[in-house]
Formats: sequence, structure tokens, C-alpha cells
Amino acid sequence: MIQVSQDSIKKIDGSIASPKGYEAKGIHCGLRYSKKDLGLLISSVPAVSAAVYTQSYFQAAPIKVTQDSLKKGAHLQAVIVNSANANACTGEQGLLDAYEMRQKTAEILGIEPALVAVSSTGVIGEYLDMEKIQKGIVLLGDTKPGEGDFEEAILTTDTVTKQTCYQLMIGGKQVTIGGAAKGSGMIHPNMATMLGFVTTDACIEEGALERALREITDVSFNQITVDGDTSTNDMVLVMANGCAENECLHEGHEEWPVFKKGLQLVCTDLAKKIAKDGEGATKLIEAQVKGAKTNLEAQIIAKKIVGSNLVKTAVYGTDANWGRIIVAIGDSMASVTPEKVEIHLGGQCLFKNNEPQPFSEEHAKQYLENSEVEIAVYMNESEGTGTAWGCDLTYEYVKINASYRT
Amino acid sequence: MIQVSQDSIKKIDGSIASPKGYEAKGIHCGLRYSKKDLGLLISSVPAVSAAVYTQSYFQAAPIKVTQDSLKKGAHLQAVIVNSANANACTGEQGLLDAYEMRQKTAEILGIEPALVAVSSTGVIGEYLDMEKIQKGIVLLGDTKPGEGDFEEAILTTDTVTKQTCYQLMIGGKQVTIGGAAKGSGMIHPNMATMLGFVTTDACIEEGALERALREITDVSFNQITVDGDTSTNDMVLVMANGCAENECLHEGHEEWPVFKKGLQLVCTDLAKKIAKDGEGATKLIEAQVKGAKTNLEAQIIAKKIVGSNLVKTAVYGTDANWGRIIVAIGDSMASVTPEKVEIHLGGQCLFKNNEPQPFSEEHAKQYLENSEVEIAVYMNESEGTGTAWGCDLTYEYVKINASYRT
Repeated sequence: MIQVSQDSIKKIDGSIASPKGYEAKGIHCGLRYSKKDLGLLISSVPAVSAAVYTQSYFQAAPIKVTQDSLKKGAHLQAVIVNSANANACTGEQGLLDAYEMRQKTAEILGIEPALVAVSSTGVIGEYLDMEKIQKGIVLLGDTKPGEGDFEEAILTTDTVTKQTCYQLMIGGKQVTIGGAAKGSGMIHPNMATMLGFVTTDACIEEGALERALREITDVSFNQITVDGDTSTNDMVLVMANGCAENECLHEGHEEWPVFKKGLQLVCTDLAKKIAKDGEGATKLIEAQVKGAKTNLEAQIIAKKIVGSNLVKTAVYGTDANWGRIIVAIGDSMASVTPEKVEIHLGGQCLFKNNEPQPFSEEHAKQYLENSEVEIAVYMNESEGTGTAWGCDLTYEYVKINASYRT
Repeated sequence: MIQVSQDSIKKIDGSIASPKGYEAKGIHCGLRYSKKDLGLLISSVPAVSAAVYTQSYFQAAPIKVTQDSLKKGAHLQAVIVNSANANACTGEQGLLDAYEMRQKTAEILGIEPALVAVSSTGVIGEYLDMEKIQKGIVLLGDTKPGEGDFEEAILTTDTVTKQTCYQLMIGGKQVTIGGAAKGSGMIHPNMATMLGFVTTDACIEEGALERALREITDVSFNQITVDGDTSTNDMVLVMANGCAENECLHEGHEEWPVFKKGLQLVCTDLAKKIAKDGEGATKLIEAQVKGAKTNLEAQIIAKKIVGSNLVKTAVYGTDANWGRIIVAIGDSMASVTPEKVEIHLGGQCLFKNNEPQPFSEEHAKQYLENSEVEIAVYMNESEGTGTAWGCDLTYEYVKINASYRT
């Protein structure tokens, strides 16, 4: 974690459109029954940009097109996003369709296609209805930005929109970082995609922005799990358009840590919102692992804990069943010395010295009734720390995912 | 997989007590309310034995004691097993208790303690009631073998007992291999242990038996998953007492492949029975992966498919949602070329050439209504094959695992 005083960074009631020079729009083009399904994010000038993508072998067509745009130069000026259809596993036609989305968006904005990123989320293995998409893109050109429209258009069946915004001072200039995300709340199955979009008006050197995004994604978006599967369409994209007119940031800049901390706060906020709105979830589960051999091992253990179906159901059932946490830790491939491990929940120590510890089941049960639950694990091996976020596993999860697509 | 004509191997209606020279008993000693909870398996003579254990860092006390017995020589003559309490995470006292179980069992049988293996399954983090266990062991000494008693005594809340038996001819002598297992069907949480016991009257050299067990466990017991967690108490143990009076088997023996195939059939039967009786399960799911780069990669992909919550819920909902299978394969860290992958279900091809294939949703849905479902994946990379077994994810799973321990 980046150690910076948070006095210099304040959370504000803003969105992805709050940093200077950005507009965000969303409309209904007909891919979904009535909800908005096509979103457009625009910067007034080309913005230094970076993205991280799903590690799945089956990367969807829009991912490939966005990679192509960023390969032609680390600048983007617009992002077009559709929901309802992932355009994944759609072969050559799918790729042509994604390029067509990029081309059409570039046309209505009068910019180079390589300045446009494309993103899709929804059902896997169906071809896009390009007539609707094309008409939709033209309509977007004539549409005024509306609060929350972009955030709604990128959702599949998430139950809430997800946005966050922070402000900080860099060299006497006010810099804003805003973010929007979608997670996986499926009614139609397959719709498990995690998308994150972050904008800032800061001026940043491109290499530094990309490295910061990778580093921060590893401890934010990559540390959440709803059901352990990696979608074909996952993407996190950050744009920095320099409209704040700050002295350009780089890794050697005195105030680089402040910006990076701001970016981390935005990404962590969005990641937690996705975990909390996981399919059928009623609770956010945060696992904090301290004293592991390395930060990476702490992250692995934390993610294993929040990813365990047994832990997830125990939290749903408000059962302080620490044996399941033990099972998750023991199976995590990190360095574990059973005699050194401690498990704490809601201020009580449940396990220590490889033996059960006396604790109040009643207090533990009460604690587990909170909508946000923290599980703290002390490995006592070294200094490594890591945090991961997940949600409980409920009847509703099974219901949502056992429903038919049709 | 071992290629041997199955004509020489026949399945019989037998159990772990069917091979010559074995007795299996089970009684109620009071750890559970009324069901049997203490089992004893005895060979009339010391049997060449081998075992494989959980890879969890938090190995339970009985696992350590069994390892100690087998370290003192590769022979066992008895196995004492209790259910209801795993004797895991119970520190020094737990270890003393497990040694006491071994000692007491040796005493009533008049054999060396190092000829006794100990196994426990049940709640993690509670101390054994040794008074009940000790009385129970004495009672076992005076109890006659009863059909199914051992198999019942090792269950926690599995819904059915699990046994299998095969006969084969080795050098003109009839050899029998029998097996019993328990899986995880929990009402009390924490009770997720997989135990497998295999007996045979074959004479086998000890090194060969151990290597065969390891190899076969990797493609049978290690290829099942109910919820992705590895218990603290998992163990598979095989005993070979030589009472069939066959020429002693070793890896160079002409009929070694026949015996090994028989052992594999026993282990695979038991593994599938465990998967099918997974918590809340209504269906067995078998994933067959062919044409992977290596057998190991095929096994990894197969296990990833049956371990995916999204695949498990889709099968429960009889939804031929192949996008979820794609997601599981794409995330499996094996060698995957999207354009080469094919997915087949119930005789229909759903995905090929990185594109959706036309198929009858109705037929697929009908197929998924079977109690055993096979998903076939062709990687078209090389010759590697692998199979894995799991079960569907149901409301009942959540209900069982969200229940309180008390």
C-alpha cells in the first residue's frame, strides 16, 4: 500500500465526468429491453491512456481492438461501451464488428479511429446487432451528457451503478480523478464482466501512468472475486488528459505518490463496490492478511479466503466458523506455519498457537450480521500485507445463475 | 489412463471386507447422536500399505500419526477411524489423543502400535472426547463385523455409504480389490473431509504399491471437487495383505497393468461416488478433456470446468451455457488456442473455430436433465487427456453450509 497522508486527498461527490475536459453519455439503442445499453466517454483533447485486460485466452473482440488503438500510441480520446452482448467467441465477424464500432465512433467525433477504445459486456457467443449499434452511435453524437447515464449504460444486471471521485493538489493545481465500473450481477448468465473506467485531468507521462495502473490493479481490481472465474471481457482503462494544467507527473516527481494514492483510492473504491454488488450478495467480505512472507503471498491468502465457497456461505449464515478460514489458508500455496497463524474476527481472536481460542460465539455472530465483515489473519512470518474483497454466497446467487438465458 | 482389456477385471457386489483376510466393523461410541461413529478395519496379517495425504499446511493430528506408523515400516494391520470430530487444529493435546487412539487399538488387537493407522473426520478445532473413544475401541474389539457398519461409521453427513469391489486374475489366482470412502455432505460445517480406504488380498511389493497409489490418486481422487477447498484430514490408504497367494506383483510383472487397472477402477468408482454425493448435489458432472498439450494440462482444464460455480449452477439449471465452459478453460493456465477448441455436450457441438455453432437448445436442455452429465472438450493441441468429476451447485448447498454449527 502507498503510504501518503490522506489529508491531501479528499473524496468528493463526483463521477467519471468530474475531471476537467470529460463528458460521459449513455443511451438506449435496443440491445436491452428498456435500460440504457450504449455509453460514450469523451475527452476534449487526446488523453494519455493505459489499460489492463483479462488474462483469459478467449479475449473478446473489443479487447483486441482497444489493444490495437493503444498500440498505435498511448493516447485515447473516446471510449465506446455497449452492454447486453460481450462480442466474445464470435470469430472474424465479431472482430469486424468491434472495428466498425471504433470507426463509427471516430466518425461522429471527427477523430482518428486509433484514439477510440471499444468495450463490450454481456452474453458470450452471440453476434452484435450492428444496425442498432450504428444507429446508437449516431444518436450518442446528438445526445447531451446526463448524470449517471454512462454508468447505467455499462451495467448488465448489477443492482447499482458504481462511481467514485477524489480530488488532490499537485503543484498547487487541483487534480480530479473519477471512476465508473460495472461488476457481475447476472440474470442472463454469461454476463460476468468486470469493467473499470478512470478519468483524470492530471498531466502524466505515459509510461508512468501505465505502470501505476498495473501496480494498483494488482491490489484493487485483481483482489476481488465473486465466483473465481475470469471473464473474456475484463478491462480497466485510465485516461489522463492534462486539463488540470499541472506540471507533468512522472515517477521521480515529488508529488507522484500523492497522485498514485489518489488513483489507488479510486480503484479500491470501485473494486469494493463490485464485490459488494456481487451476484446475490448481501455482504462485503474483506480479508486482511498481515505478516506474510511477501505482499504477494498475503494477497494470495486473502483472495483464497474471500474466494472460498465455505467461507462465503458461513458469512451468509453468520457462523464464525474459523475452521473454514484455516482450510482456505492451508490450501493457499503460500508459506504457512500453522503454529504462527492467528485468526481474528470482530475484535476477537478465534485461533492461535495451532489451537482454538475461547471466544464469544454470540458476539461473533452479531459481528457477522454487519453488511461489511472484516476477517483479519496474522501469519507472523514476515512483513507482507494484502487485502482482498468478496461477498457472501447466497440462495439468490444460485437462483440468478441457474436461470435460463431465454 | 491405463490401457488394459476389462474382460480380465469384473465388478462384484462386494466391499472393503471382501478381499481375503479383512474384517471391517463399525459402532456408535457417542460422538454423534445416534449414528455409527467409530470404525475399525483389520487385516489378519500385516499388509503392505501406502497412503496419500492432504496437502494442507494444517494437517490434522491423525494424519501425522498415520505417517509415523508408515515411516516405521510399510506395513499396517489395522485402521481406526472416527467421524464427527476431525481432531484438526487441536495442537499438542490433539496429537496425544491421536497417538492414544493408535495405542489403544494396538492393545485390543495385540499388535504393535506402528501397525495401526488413525483417521478422523468431522468438526475442526474441537478436542476429541477420549473417554468415549477409548470405551468405543474396547467395544469394537468385542463387536462382530456387520455389512456396511464400517462404511457408515466413517460418514459425516454424506447421504449414502460409498463402496466398490472388483475381482481379477493374477497368475491364475483370484485377486479382489475393495474400497470404501466418505465425501463431504455437511450439516455441521467444517466436516469436509475426503477419506478413501482400499483393501486387496494381492501380494505386492511395497514401493510399487505406493507409486501406483500416487499415480492413480492423481487421476481419480485428486480429480474431484465439490467446492474447491482441501480439508485438513484428507487421506487415501491402501492395504495389500497377500492372502490371495499370488506371485508377488511388482512394476516389471507381466500382470502388473491388470492389477493397476483394477486399483484405478476402485479409486475412480469411489471418487465419482464422492462427487455425486457432494453437498446438496443433484447431478454428477464429468468433464472429459482430450487433445491437450499434456495429460496434466488436460486434468487441470477438466478440474477447472467442474470446479466453476458458473458451470455448476448452469448444469443445475439445465442451461447449455457453453460460454461458462469457455470462461473456465480460458482461465486455466494451460495451453489454449481459442481457434482450436471444441465443446461438445450430449452429442452436439456447441463451439468450434472460435465461433458459436448452431445446436438444439431443447436437446441440450433434455440432456442436462440426466443425473450424470458429460462435458467433452477437444483442445486439438496434442494427445493429452484428462477427466474430472464434480457436482452441480444448488440451493441445498447454500442451505447446508449457511447453517450454524450449533
